[in-house]
Amino acid sequence: MKRVKLTVAYDGTNFCGWQTQVNGNAVQDVLNRHLCDLLGEDVKTMGASRTDSGVHARGNVAVFDTDARIPVEKICFALNARLPEDIRVLRSEEVDGAFHPRFTQTVKTYEYCIWNDVFADPMHRLYAMHAYGNLDDRAMDRAAQYLLGEHDFVSFCSAGNQTLTTVRTIFEIGVRREGCLVTMRIRGNGFLYNMVRIIAGTLIEVGQGKCSAECVEGILTACDRSQAGPTAVAKGLTLVGIKYPEWEGGRIRL
Amino acid sequence: MKRVKLTVAYDGTNFCGWQTQVNGNAVQDVLNRHLCDLLGEDVKTMGASRTDSGVHARGNVAVFDTDARIPVEKICFALNARLPEDIRVLRSEEVDGAFHPRFTQTVKTYEYCIWNDVFADPMHRLYAMHAYGNLDDRAMDRAAQYLLGEHDFVSFCSAGNQTLTTVRTIFEIGVRREGCLVTMRIRGNGFLYNMVRIIAGTLIEVGQGKCSAECVEGILTACDRSQAGPTAVAKGLTLVGIKYPEWEGGRIRL
Repeated sequence: MKRVKLTVAYDGTNFCGWQTQVNGNAVQDVLNRHLCDLLGEDVKTMGASRTDSGVHARGNVAVFDTDARIPVEKICFALNARLPEDIRVLRSEEVDGAFHPRFTQTVKTYEYCIWNDVFADPMHRLYAMHAYGNLDDRAMDRAAQYLLGEHDFVSFCSAGNQTLTTVRTIFEIGVRREGCLVTMRIRGNGFLYNMVRIIAGTLIEVGQGKCSAECVEGILTACDRSQAGPTAVAKGLTLVGIKYPEWEGGRIRL
Repeated sequence: MKRVKLTVAYDGTNFCGWQTQVNGNAVQDVLNRHLCDLLGEDVKTMGASRTDSGVHARGNVAVFDTDARIPVEKICFALNARLPEDIRVLRSEEVDGAFHPRFTQTVKTYEYCIWNDVFADPMHRLYAMHAYGNLDDRAMDRAAQYLLGEHDFVSFCSAGNQTLTTVRTIFEIGVRREGCLVTMRIRGNGFLYNMVRIIAGTLIEVGQGKCSAECVEGILTACDRSQAGPTAVAKGLTLVGIKYPEWEGGRIRL
C-alpha cells in the first residue's frame, strides 16, 4: 500500500467547490471517479483545502492510498488524459504513510484578484472581482500590514467556522497593481472560514476610501465580525499553493 | 445622423469570430442585435478587425450610424447592461462621419500567449496555447527582431488573404517570459490573414530548437509560406488595441 500526494490545479467556475457533494460535481468527486477508473480500486482522496464553490486553485493538495502498480509519478499523466480541461494534476508523488494533508502544519498562499476599471474585462470575468470606482491600492497595502503576524482573526471569520482556535499567523501580505488588475497575496499558517475573502472585502473598502488604512488595526482588535468588510466574491480567490514545513527535508518530497 | 465608434473587448471562446455568420453567433451579430434593441433602429456595425473564431480582443473597434437621441458616451453603459459577460463595450464616442474603421491607416497591437509547462494551466486554458517542452524565449525574442520594419510578409500569410499587397511594417515585436507564461507582443500597420499566428508558430519552432533564430531571416526573404512554421492555435491570440494616427489630433478622439 502506497500513499500518493497529488498537486491539483483547477478553474473553480464550473464546480461546487472542492469537497464531495451529493450532486457529484465537486472537484474531489471528479478526481475520485477518474482515479477509480484509472486504478481499478475504490479510491477516496483526502484534500488539504476545501475551497468554496467558484474558488480556483493552482496548487491544492490531495492524498490517497493505493495498491496499484502504475509508477506513482506517471499517475498525473494518465489522469490528465481523462480529466476535463478545467482540472489538471500537476504532480503525483509517493509520500510517507503518516502524511495527512490537513492535520499537518501547513503554509498556504492565496491570491485575491480585483479588476479595477469602469467595466469588467471579459477575459478576467471568471478570475477577478470587478470594482469600478477608484481603488487606492497603496492604502490597501498599508492597511494589510496590520494583519501581519500572530493575531486572533475572529473579526475576519464567517459563522460556521469549525476550528478550535481563531488565532492564526500571517507571514506575508501585500497588495500590488498591474494596470487594471489589483492583486492581494497572503501567506499564512492556516485560514479561518472565508478569512481571505473577508480580508479582501475589508481592504477593498479601504481602497474605496470608505475607511482609512489605520481602521484595520481596530477591526482586528475588536474581535467582532460585524466590524470588518463584506465577504468578497468567490471567483476572485485562488489557492496558489500549500507547503508542509514538517515534511520537508527528506520525509516527503515537496 | 451621428457616427459612433465603439471599443469592444471579448472573450472569443464561445463565438464564431467577429464577422457576422449565418448562425448568428459572431460577436458582431450579438452586438448588432443589442444595438437594434437599444436604439430602436436597424443598426449594422462595421468592424475594424475580423478576428477568427476563438481569438480574443481587448480593443477591437466598430462603427455605426444612428439618429437615436441617447447621449453617445452613455451607449456603452446601456449596451453592457444587455450584453453577455463575455462581450464588453469599453467606450462609445462620436466620430467624424468620414471615419471608417477598416479603410483607414491603423496601428494594431496583438499579443500571443503560450503556457510553457508540462501540463496546461486550467485558468489559462482558454487564453494561451500549451507548449510542454523547453521553450527558449530569448532565442524567440532574437528571432523576432528579423521581422522588424517593412517587409513582404507573404511567407507568414495563409491562402485566402484578400489584400492587394503583402508588404507590411512591424513597428515593435518582442517575446518575454513571466514564469510559465511566454508572451509575444507585436505592433504593426496591418496584418495579413493569420500572419500573427504564423509568426507565433514560427517563433515557437525556434524556441523549441527546431530551427535557429537566424533561420527567420531566410524564411522572410524566401517569400514562401511553406518555409514558415505552422499557424498557432487561435485561442492564444488577443487583439490588444487599434490606433488611427491620421485621426488623432482633434478629428477623432482616441
